[in-house]
Amino acid sequence: MAFGGFHPVSGVDLPRFAGIATFMRLPHITFDDPRLSEVEIGLIGVPWDGGTTNRPGPRHAPRQLRDCSTMVRFQNGATKVRPYDLARCADLGDVGPNPADVADSLARITAFYDKVRDAGIIPLSAGGDHLCTLPILRALAKDRPLGMVHFDSHTDLFHSYFGGFKYTHGTPFRRAVEEELLDPKRVCMIGIRGSAYDFEDRDFADAVGIRVIPIEEFHARGVDDVMAEAREIVGSAETYVSYDIDFVDPTFAPGTGTPEIGGPNSFQALQVVRALQGLNIIGADLVEVSPPVDPSGGTAFLGATILFELLCVIAESKALKLAA
Amino acid sequence: MAFGGFHPVSGVDLPRFAGIATFMRLPHITFDDPRLSEVEIGLIGVPWDGGTTNRPGPRHAPRQLRDCSTMVRFQNGATKVRPYDLARCADLGDVGPNPADVADSLARITAFYDKVRDAGIIPLSAGGDHLCTLPILRALAKDRPLGMVHFDSHTDLFHSYFGGFKYTHGTPFRRAVEEELLDPKRVCMIGIRGSAYDFEDRDFADAVGIRVIPIEEFHARGVDDVMAEAREIVGSAETYVSYDIDFVDPTFAPGTGTPEIGGPNSFQALQVVRALQGLNIIGADLVEVSPPVDPSGGTAFLGATILFELLCVIAESKALKLAA
Amino acid sequence: MAFGGFHPVSGVDLPRFAGIATFMRLPHITFDDPRLSEVEIGLIGVPWDGGTTNRPGPRHAPRQLRDCSTMVRFQNGATKVRPYDLARCADLGDVGPNPADVADSLARITAFYDKVRDAGIIPLSAGGDHLCTLPILRALAKDRPLGMVHFDSHTDLFHSYFGGFKYTHGTPFRRAVEEELLDPKRVCMIGIRGSAYDFEDRDFADAVGIRVIPIEEFHARGVDDVMAEAREIVGSAETYVSYDIDFVDPTFAPGTGTPEIGGPNSFQALQVVRALQGLNIIGADLVEVSPPVDPSGGTAFLGATILFELLCVIAESKALKLAA
Amino acid sequence: MAFGGFHPVSGVDLPRFAGIATFMRLPHITFDDPRLSEVEIGLIGVPWDGGTTNRPGPRHAPRQLRDCSTMVRFQNGATKVRPYDLARCADLGDVGPNPADVADSLARITAFYDKVRDAGIIPLSAGGDHLCTLPILRALAKDRPLGMVHFDSHTDLFHSYFGGFKYTHGTPFRRAVEEELLDPKRVCMIGIRGSAYDFEDRDFADAVGIRVIPIEEFHARGVDDVMAEAREIVGSAETYVSYDIDFVDPTFAPGTGTPEIGGPNSFQALQVVRALQGLNIIGADLVEVSPPVDPSGGTAFLGATILFELLCVIAESKALKLAA
Amino acid sequence: MAFGGFHPVSGVDLPRFAGIATFMRLPHITFDDPRLSEVEIGLIGVPWDGGTTNRPGPRHAPRQLRDCSTMVRFQNGATKVRPYDLARCADLGDVGPNPADVADSLARITAFYDKVRDAGIIPLSAGGDHLCTLPILRALAKDRPLGMVHFDSHTDLFHSYFGGFKYTHGTPFRRAVEEELLDPKRVCMIGIRGSAYDFEDRDFADAVGIRVIPIEEFHARGVDDVMAEAREIVGSAETYVSYDIDFVDPTFAPGTGTPEIGGPNSFQALQVVRALQGLNIIGADLVEVSPPVDPSGGTAFLGATILFELLCVIAESKALKLAA
Amino acid sequence: MAFGGFHPVSGVDLPRFAGIATFMRLPHITFDDPRLSEVEIGLIGVPWDGGTTNRPGPRHAPRQLRDCSTMVRFQNGATKVRPYDLARCADLGDVGPNPADVADSLARITAFYDKVRDAGIIPLSAGGDHLCTLPILRALAKDRPLGMVHFDSHTDLFHSYFGGFKYTHGTPFRRAVEEELLDPKRVCMIGIRGSAYDFEDRDFADAVGIRVIPIEEFHARGVDDVMAEAREIVGSAETYVSYDIDFVDPTFAPGTGTPEIGGPNSFQALQVVRALQGLNIIGADLVEVSPPVDPSGGTAFLGATILFELLCVIAESKALKLAA
Repeated sequence: MAFGGFHPVSGVDLPRFAGIATFMRLPHITFDDPRLSEVEIGLIGVPWDGGTTNRPGPRHAPRQLRDCSTMVRFQNGATKVRPYDLARCADLGDVGPNPADVADSLARITAFYDKVRDAGIIPLSAGGDHLCTLPILRALAKDRPLGMVHFDSHTDLFHSYFGGFKYTHGTPFRRAVEEELLDPKRVCMIGIRGSAYDFEDRDFADAVGIRVIPIEEFHARGVDDVMAEAREIVGSAETYVSYDIDFVDPTFAPGTGTPEIGGPNSFQALQVVRALQGLNIIGADLVEVSPPVDPSGGTAFLGATILFELLCVIAESKALKLAA
Repeated sequence: MAFGGFHPVSGVDLPRFAGIATFMRLPHITFDDPRLSEVEIGLIGVPWDGGTTNRPGPRHAPRQLRDCSTMVRFQNGATKVRPYDLARCADLGDVGPNPADVADSLARITAFYDKVRDAGIIPLSAGGDHLCTLPILRALAKDRPLGMVHFDSHTDLFHSYFGGFKYTHGTPFRRAVEEELLDPKRVCMIGIRGSAYDFEDRDFADAVGIRVIPIEEFHARGVDDVMAEAREIVGSAETYVSYDIDFVDPTFAPGTGTPEIGGPNSFQALQVVRALQGLNIIGADLVEVSPPVDPSGGTAFLGATILFELLCVIAESKALKLAA
Repeated sequence: MAFGGFHPVSGVDLPRFAGIATFMRLPHITFDDPRLSEVEIGLIGVPWDGGTTNRPGPRHAPRQLRDCSTMVRFQNGATKVRPYDLARCADLGDVGPNPADVADSLARITAFYDKVRDAGIIPLSAGGDHLCTLPILRALAKDRPLGMVHFDSHTDLFHSYFGGFKYTHGTPFRRAVEEELLDPKRVCMIGIRGSAYDFEDRDFADAVGIRVIPIEEFHARGVDDVMAEAREIVGSAETYVSYDIDFVDPTFAPGTGTPEIGGPNSFQALQVVRALQGLNIIGADLVEVSPPVDPSGGTAFLGATILFELLCVIAESKALKLAA
Repeated sequence: MAFGGFHPVSGVDLPRFAGIATFMRLPHITFDDPRLSEVEIGLIGVPWDGGTTNRPGPRHAPRQLRDCSTMVRFQNGATKVRPYDLARCADLGDVGPNPADVADSLARITAFYDKVRDAGIIPLSAGGDHLCTLPILRALAKDRPLGMVHFDSHTDLFHSYFGGFKYTHGTPFRRAVEEELLDPKRVCMIGIRGSAYDFEDRDFADAVGIRVIPIEEFHARGVDDVMAEAREIVGSAETYVSYDIDFVDPTFAPGTGTPEIGGPNSFQALQVVRALQGLNIIGADLVEVSPPVDPSGGTAFLGATILFELLCVIAESKALKLAA
Repeated sequence: MAFGGFHPVSGVDLPRFAGIATFMRLPHITFDDPRLSEVEIGLIGVPWDGGTTNRPGPRHAPRQLRDCSTMVRFQNGATKVRPYDLARCADLGDVGPNPADVADSLARITAFYDKVRDAGIIPLSAGGDHLCTLPILRALAKDRPLGMVHFDSHTDLFHSYFGGFKYTHGTPFRRAVEEELLDPKRVCMIGIRGSAYDFEDRDFADAVGIRVIPIEEFHARGVDDVMAEAREIVGSAETYVSYDIDFVDPTFAPGTGTPEIGGPNSFQALQVVRALQGLNIIGADLVEVSPPVDPSGGTAFLGATILFELLCVIAESKALKLAA
Repeated sequence: MAFGGFHPVSGVDLPRFAGIATFMRLPHITFDDPRLSEVEIGLIGVPWDGGTTNRPGPRHAPRQLRDCSTMVRFQNGATKVRPYDLARCADLGDVGPNPADVADSLARITAFYDKVRDAGIIPLSAGGDHLCTLPILRALAKDRPLGMVHFDSHTDLFHSYFGGFKYTHGTPFRRAVEEELLDPKRVCMIGIRGSAYDFEDRDFADAVGIRVIPIEEFHARGVDDVMAEAREIVGSAETYVSYDIDFVDPTFAPGTGTPEIGGPNSFQALQVVRALQGLNIIGADLVEVSPPVDPSGGTAFLGATILFELLCVIAESKALKLAA
């Protein structure tokens, strides 16, 4: 069919199980497509899990997330936002990683996002493991540190693994702070929990001023209170949002490699995103969905719904800025 | 073994995994059985999903629900009700649908329920998809509109699909209102959520006076408050209860074709039924359980437990009427 | 619906996924039913696995086999036999076992089959584990030893387990020979394979004259040659057929507790039964299907097809005897 | 990336799990794309199972087949054919069906294939259930009957179901013969087996001259002999190939709705296609893959490999014709 | 590698998926090992489900729990306790049961725990079904009755099953009270729910003074309030903790044989254990995890986390006593 | 229990589902154990899949293989060999890899096998992906090239991937020939099949003299003929055996990352190993079992059985050499 504009195909026209699966049923726009310049928000897959120290699998997430995202419709039932009326959106395809080499993959990812940034497109990314966020930040935060709202059960602030190896999915934000891609004073980590080997990561957070909100505090205070603090921490300056699916309790999101018992439920998983409304978001990602661990697709469907909620707040934020 | 009255087989006599699976291990009574006239509440399967626009499967639900219902015992742990001491119950078997024709299936279902109604039996039905409720209502509400408590994540009030097709699982209650099977002023829909293409269904609800309680309101107000309002809306007149399993959060009830993230948990899934105690219920159904999507049977076990809770409130309501 | 004679419900009338699941969609006839005296072949479930020394589960097999048997139609595609035109068949329900006591369960099973034998019904049984065959033989071979064709990967001729315990699914035929329920000279075991602790079982077989055909010989000689020998061994006298699903290669029949690599494929699994045509079969069983190990139902569907093939040869054999 | 010609993406450049999944990683060409006129072979999905009388699911097959087809590389390991060097191939997307109406869906499918035929493209289709083949034939065989090689466990030659309904997945070839879309003398059906209700279909085949090769004959004669006969039956005139995945034994292809025990293994499943080399094939399909019954994707991977083998013989046949 | 002391292997040294799986990656110490005398807390598997009246499987739990426990690290994220710094812990292996005999298995289990008790080791056990707790108590409470905190959806206080059989997983605490292994006044049962056949168990509880807190009360009062009462009931005297995984809602813990809808979520599942801090715990178990019902391992991972929480409170309690 | 010699625990003493899972239930002997010097054959896990270019997972294989290997008994049913009577066997544990670095992992594996070689132990290894074989060969073939019998669907002879990366599971034998670890004239690759990108690997094989037997030839000639040739190629000199589970047809061995349709069945999978009897085998491995792709364990059970067959031929070969 002819290009129908930057709008998803409707399930009333073509059933949702039909058609080639792109993110949200959006048009696929490649870098050499003349319409690229019109795109405002780009959904991108990063099919790579080379930083995974335990159970692999997130390299398969972009394809499963695309599949499940075809179940999502146009307007947000809770917030009434219609993102495709607010911003031109497209599926920009996948970064091509090198499964056999960590350093080469990091370079390939940054190169891809350099182009996205240069095209003025806000990237909404689907990992991949959490190490993927580091090369994305290297492109987006090239010239100044960003704030970050980080949903996760782990801080990912460790120094190294296996005798000094510095690039794993447990280390990206240590590196990002070291490389001045993040302003630690404007970083808030929410949902941290689970057993640990030591306190090295928490000590680092304390030392540089990252605010860590453990899950016990989250459950005690509730979504509204916690998110009000998070909004205050990042403020109105440029902010990145990184959402590790293991933030959510593993019963609601079993498809992930390093689950930790006792997280938020699925309603809260959406509420925390809705509470980002109005922030100055210049990029976001959803990482660590691992299809081999949940072939049912339940986790990916939750993930696709979170991506849609992120898309809504980004599109609304963008529309507000234009209006201002 | 000899006919033991309208009572389930006990697991202390015959282990629950043994024996031919009928609903709740009740006797199977067919229309030509002389004992039919004694039955007060009939459990019926409607193995049909011809109205499904997305992922099919509910045609397989009656068999899986029968299997899982053999796990349920005689008395309600929370309310202490012993339904089989209050009413004569039986499994009336399945309606025979026509998988290859929507109109013929609708006619077959209504014909079956005409007989049930004429026999003075209160039907407790296990779908099938939600379009099954329409032909049931055509039999039960033949001569006057009913009130309805409707648990669901969707309103099922849409006008048509795929260019004007009026009979799908997204349209039954639009038809039921048009056909005056339901009194919209006495209809309450609870748990509505998820993304949407437009507001057509909600506009219709507003226009005819159906009360829609979205999930955000449900979570904010709590079960007791919401159900008090629902009870008030339907009042003491004749009421139908329609329970779509996708009312429940998909983590608790993954086995369904059109899940929406963020619904009630399994305890709330039972609480809302218990809160129907004392209403004038003349029929009820549980629909949209889809075994191919949850072969583990977890969803069907929840469904069987919901059926038992529905049976308890119906039996108690019936006993109260007789006592009055 | 009214009793339609001893004939299954057709899928052209009622779709095969609809209706309460009995074996082959046959009528359920209980011991107190006046029609019992008309039944010639009775399908019976024995939901018990109390003799299982490794992975439990066959207690769940009768229900899953009933479910899958609703997929089987009326006439045999290969042999053209229409069993329901040759013999009156019914589902006699399940034996009620005692999951918490081996001796009590053995007694209950024999008591059930005493009634079946006394009613002149040929039993076609669905286990349960292989220990179930012993109490069945105690009823059927009460007054004279039987011949037996035994399909299995194990001989089940061991003496005892765990320090002298004599009743497990590894010992039924040792007991049956000791109790003179089987005439070892008329017993043929086909498909034996897998690793072993010692040769005790094989030494016993040799000592009493049981013919054991290992899988290597089966593959080398082929179905026709092996089955010709088996037919010769049991001859024209009364014969029991015991079919352990683990005879079949575990890829074709994964749902079993003690699989052994390298067995026959699914076509051969049916061919060996067809080769029993004309034998004087006075009972048969299919055992060791374990639903928890194959929730997909693939193994049970193969099992239900094997039951149908057994039914065909029994019905044909019965018809021939009547004609003689 | 820029359009790279009608050639799949290589896994050495982009890992096979990465990228938006199209059939064989081919470019997606829509009807309004100017490159459409260059396409010689079009892969098309028909996500519709409205004719299914038993277990639904094939509507989901095109997406799962696309996913699994990304595992297939460029050249055939057995025949050495490199199809993309012989013909310009593309993914033409999916036909948009109407899940709620059989007649409308049949019309939509035929309309789609009318365009394909008019564009001079040979369609290689992925169903959908077997009723999909009828509307395809209505387009391709509009002006003269075709020959057909048909791999299946069922003849699909029945007259009607459920009291006269003529359009189900058990009737397409009865209709096709009646409508003179097929020349029954040039039709060969291979692999037929399983239980049946009656012989109506086989009687029809005999009456009109369709050659039916049951599975027992297939196993006895072997692939080479059977396929030599099939080639002779269809001869050098225009021929359609219809491959129902349930031709293959259900252990090798569990993901289908109406399995029958005892079919060919996976090696034979490929061999029969390779034996079509040199025929005058003007279209082909693979139908009845049902993802909900095999979420592992094993059946779809076999299906994708069969599609590749079909693509190889079609491309080679086309190249030979051009050379002639 | 050399014996590294009573400390788990770290995942930073050896990835958590590597190595032979012992409980918590602790050293395996057998009864004949000279280091046995140094062990203070012993993790023990009881792979037996001979008391199961419904769906079997817990015999497989110790192995799956060991596997999943390798995911748990050293220090408690919520309470900051580092148990291996407080007590010498080891995996003592499995009790060897007799799957074919209930009485023999009960005797074997008690004999094993007699040795554990005599060695002065606090046992933390992984069942097995709930009947396993009885023979453990026979060893630990040999000379005086104990108090007990019991998390479960069932009281397990029934008298007998199947016509008088007294030893099943529904009767252990009836026996334990009769045998004076438990002081009923110091027993608190939390989370009781689900349908029932009668009130026999609850009547017994009332008669002997066991405190039963049904789930409705649990949800209404909250964890803190309920656990304060439980702590008061057992007081400072010696106490056993028995945790049936079916205490947790079956969505969070599907891998169990007798699930009941509506229990606590996974966060609460951990909170109730943390609330045992400071009690005088002389043994604990986690029972009824059934791997065949949840092969994904999600239930076992929750179970392993509960075992770790139990280990933390036991180690801390032990350390406090030593300090006192 | 006390050390019982180098012999597995018997399932007649301790049920096979009980106990900590080591390979074949053998004692776990670490490098610092004084009994190491007595070990003749060591089973070793290599939990690493860092060379995987497509679907990851083999890092989890050693644990699943250990679990399934507890099902295997002491003597070979087909060959009657009792390996533990012929050689002292032990489980040597796992190599500790570095999941985040390919080069470091290769070095760690070689270092481990250097010790094994120096201890005079024949290693029987369980991968891991096929790249694991390279560092093993670097230890075993340090001082002279070996012959190799290689069962696989791929040659693994490619030069490089992703723009020049030389160490993936598609390249180990290219490297091994280059490094003179293998004598290509004494290498035979059996079962090769599937689609390909080009003929680079086959051209290399031809150039250096490796004999490649494609699957079509294997099926046409049969096991005996093919294996006779393989035995002739490697002769009586020192030989390594590398068995990739994807040699077997994916229906029989679905749990692998790069399946190819049309391989040997499970009986042939064992026959080819038995045909190695008498060769001078100095090491062997089984690789590419991927548990996430087959959580049922069916593939791992086949794999454990293949390991046992390999153990039998190694033990017998060793015994023969000692006798000579």
